[in-house]
Amino acid sequence: MSPSQPATDDAADLPRHLLGLEGVSAGTINRVLEEAQGFRALLEKADKKTDALKGRTIINLFFEASTRTRTSFELAGKRLSADVINISASASSLQKGETWLDTVRTLEAMTPDALVIRHPDSGAPHLAARALDSHCAVINGGDGPHEHPTQALLDVLTIQHHKGPIDGLKVAIVGDAAHSRVARSQIHALHTLGAAEIRLVGPKTLMPAEAAPALGVQVFHNADAGLKGVDVIIMLRMQMERIRGAAVPSQREYFRLYGLDPARVERAADDVLVMHPGPMNRGVEIASEVADGPYSVILPQVTNGLAIRMAVLNLLARQRQSAGPA
Amino acid sequence: MSPSQPATDDAADLPRHLLGLEGVSAGTINRVLEEAQGFRALLEKADKKTDALKGRTIINLFFEASTRTRTSFELAGKRLSADVINISASASSLQKGETWLDTVRTLEAMTPDALVIRHPDSGAPHLAARALDSHCAVINGGDGPHEHPTQALLDVLTIQHHKGPIDGLKVAIVGDAAHSRVARSQIHALHTLGAAEIRLVGPKTLMPAEAAPALGVQVFHNADAGLKGVDVIIMLRMQMERIRGAAVPSQREYFRLYGLDPARVERAADDVLVMHPGPMNRGVEIASEVADGPYSVILPQVTNGLAIRMAVLNLLARQRQSAGPA
Amino acid sequence: MSPSQPATDDAADLPRHLLGLEGVSAGTINRVLEEAQGFRALLEKADKKTDALKGRTIINLFFEASTRTRTSFELAGKRLSADVINISASASSLQKGETWLDTVRTLEAMTPDALVIRHPDSGAPHLAARALDSHCAVINGGDGPHEHPTQALLDVLTIQHHKGPIDGLKVAIVGDAAHSRVARSQIHALHTLGAAEIRLVGPKTLMPAEAAPALGVQVFHNADAGLKGVDVIIMLRMQMERIRGAAVPSQREYFRLYGLDPARVERAADDVLVMHPGPMNRGVEIASEVADGPYSVILPQVTNGLAIRMAVLNLLARQRQSAGPA
Repeated sequence: MSPSQPATDDAADLPRHLLGLEGVSAGTINRVLEEAQGFRALLEKADKKTDALKGRTIINLFFEASTRTRTSFELAGKRLSADVINISASASSLQKGETWLDTVRTLEAMTPDALVIRHPDSGAPHLAARALDSHCAVINGGDGPHEHPTQALLDVLTIQHHKGPIDGLKVAIVGDAAHSRVARSQIHALHTLGAAEIRLVGPKTLMPAEAAPALGVQVFHNADAGLKGVDVIIMLRMQMERIRGAAVPSQREYFRLYGLDPARVERAADDVLVMHPGPMNRGVEIASEVADGPYSVILPQVTNGLAIRMAVLNLLARQRQSAGPA
Repeated sequence: MSPSQPATDDAADLPRHLLGLEGVSAGTINRVLEEAQGFRALLEKADKKTDALKGRTIINLFFEASTRTRTSFELAGKRLSADVINISASASSLQKGETWLDTVRTLEAMTPDALVIRHPDSGAPHLAARALDSHCAVINGGDGPHEHPTQALLDVLTIQHHKGPIDGLKVAIVGDAAHSRVARSQIHALHTLGAAEIRLVGPKTLMPAEAAPALGVQVFHNADAGLKGVDVIIMLRMQMERIRGAAVPSQREYFRLYGLDPARVERAADDVLVMHPGPMNRGVEIASEVADGPYSVILPQVTNGLAIRMAVLNLLARQRQSAGPA
Repeated sequence: MSPSQPATDDAADLPRHLLGLEGVSAGTINRVLEEAQGFRALLEKADKKTDALKGRTIINLFFEASTRTRTSFELAGKRLSADVINISASASSLQKGETWLDTVRTLEAMTPDALVIRHPDSGAPHLAARALDSHCAVINGGDGPHEHPTQALLDVLTIQHHKGPIDGLKVAIVGDAAHSRVARSQIHALHTLGAAEIRLVGPKTLMPAEAAPALGVQVFHNADAGLKGVDVIIMLRMQMERIRGAAVPSQREYFRLYGLDPARVERAADDVLVMHPGPMNRGVEIASEVADGPYSVILPQVTNGLAIRMAVLNLLARQRQSAGPA
């Protein structure tokens, strides 16, 4: 479909907000992926712009620093011809004592069509969505250790692009799943789309508190065993501050036990995909030969991220048009 | 009138800059309000954009942090299709020792059409306006404790929208009027438009140094007396740093004496409007039940702020066109 | 020529990147100057916008603070109708441990057409250009003490505008040439365009390590001698941190020996041009009477900087179109 077309009838089934992927149907996820494929094609042209969201406004409200996600949403909005406003919390009235929900309501009163929120607390975008009183869509740009839905969607788009349907694939997620919003969203998306196996690989100290069966995953503390035969390896970013805390003894030790080097890649399926949400710590969770090697799709993930955010913004920030004047 | 029309003949009467509201005529204020009403209607449409300022450039030069005012001017400019550049002083060459007026002149040489200046010193936008050598308009986005003209204009637009003409209304401004640029601009605007009574309500330590008659206000140190029968209550933001200084003993004590709670609202006229320029300190100057209650127009103030800034930019940033090539 | 025309045939001779002016031919420099003259004329109109780069994306990646250069590139891009994204390193994933070249590659994967890089290390834009894998152009926005090519191009444009051809002119560059990327780029450009004499004027401690003949300059430690009869005086910004270090005893002493005051201007040719890249330290390297005096073209330099950046972006960010889809 052409990305500049209005959302089709099944848009009626789209949720108003994108707060997470838990409980989101395969139909909705596929709708976003399909829309993103159209934008992926657009990104290969010299003129990468459509006027799909001309006259609409997107506000990026970031309570945590982020180059990658903020830039991706900003550029996605601009390429859809929306007006995009960036607000970082450090420059905000939060410093003056206003509650953050008052900030959200104040911004809503400026009549934006979508509000992308990154926040250090789990559930913050959900609170924001409940506080809103208009047609404005809330998009979760990462909330604490909870969810990061557009990251998981771009991962799925990337896997699909190289492997076809997710259905039946074996995927290993390696690293600090306990504190990773990325892993949590990936698990939901991969499940919903029918992955055959989802493995979490890492030390006990970095595995989620939830029981593995409840999450629908298998846990491996041994990397060589966990990577055996998988179609996709997703490395998680190691938070440096966890190293030399209780969780991990040292960078060198972590790399020895869980780092992705060429030998470990060999244990996976022949045409394995190597993924990483970035920013990477080279030599900590991933060897440079692997990050830059033939199986890596780390940079295509970034391009797909732009296509996913264009798709999400296009589907959610124009609902009001489909629905008629509010 | 259509907001995308060129400024009409009486535009000749518009000042070149908007530095404050002291001495600005009722005719000029009404011209801005009328223009803003057109933009207010535009903000209710799905496509909120006009190409009124296409090809024009607006620079937001903020020497103090501000989410609300900066975002409002930025979005106002973008919805008029202007190019908008944000500059915050902390990222500026001020750090390198350049004088701030050299920064202003340097930016002027980049040929903008309007420069919105927020500065901690009273009179800074006036100095900037005198330093300029081109058609560029200077708009005061708040200068120290002196003036904040677009805030007062949006307040007047909000009152008018709910109450009709300002003429004959009784308005109470409650809180730290001594240090408030908002209060100072409001007093000028309300006077010029013929308010019947302007009351300042607060402790002696927070009342302006000017004599009340010179300002044309009545001063009340007792909140219950000051609010009696008023049509509009404007709460001022309490600067937290003044509390526990000489001026105010404690937050709790301040709220007990001057905070706006439901009982105090009852003392005002039946259909009183409750206003606040934001950001609010809930529980310090205003109770949450009142801020979120039926008389509050605090969020509509924000929307009106966008309309006022669109109006001001549209009237001042295109003067050069009316005047022919400079 | 019209600035909105596609690059003409000789565009084939343009370098893919603008990393510095060392070794760049007179033909290429003149091509940029000619293009910039078209944009200079555009900047005098009320509508200063062309749609030359509509659908293209420019990313400003600044690892050092800069109001002037960042704003100039941002506005240049916007007036060409490109989408412009600003990234400052302090807000970037560098804080999270990613290497800066990974940041560059990540941004490249967002499919920009040009990347403007300012970096404290000499040669950083060259490394970035080598790391790229697409058609994206890299433009050096200043790399350590190495080069600042768009500054030198705008200086040359300014001289040409007032003096005609550079060929045969005598130019004095006064101040801390040792640490100045501006001086280094100016020397290359002035040489290539046939300046008769390039003089470096300043104390021994601030002269470049390279031998004067290798640079093709004459060195003067006496300001009065160095300025005698020159057609153009270019003052360099004094880095305050060098004063009271080993290099310079005090601000007052520096001004006495090398500061540009009206008496020194008198020693130059009758119609001398006084230039400064900004931000100026008034009273340190230049007297206010001179900075604001009749020979000063310091503010026109800023306007010309915008025209040069529009020219460079227009020539380099659209190469892909000329070359067909990549």
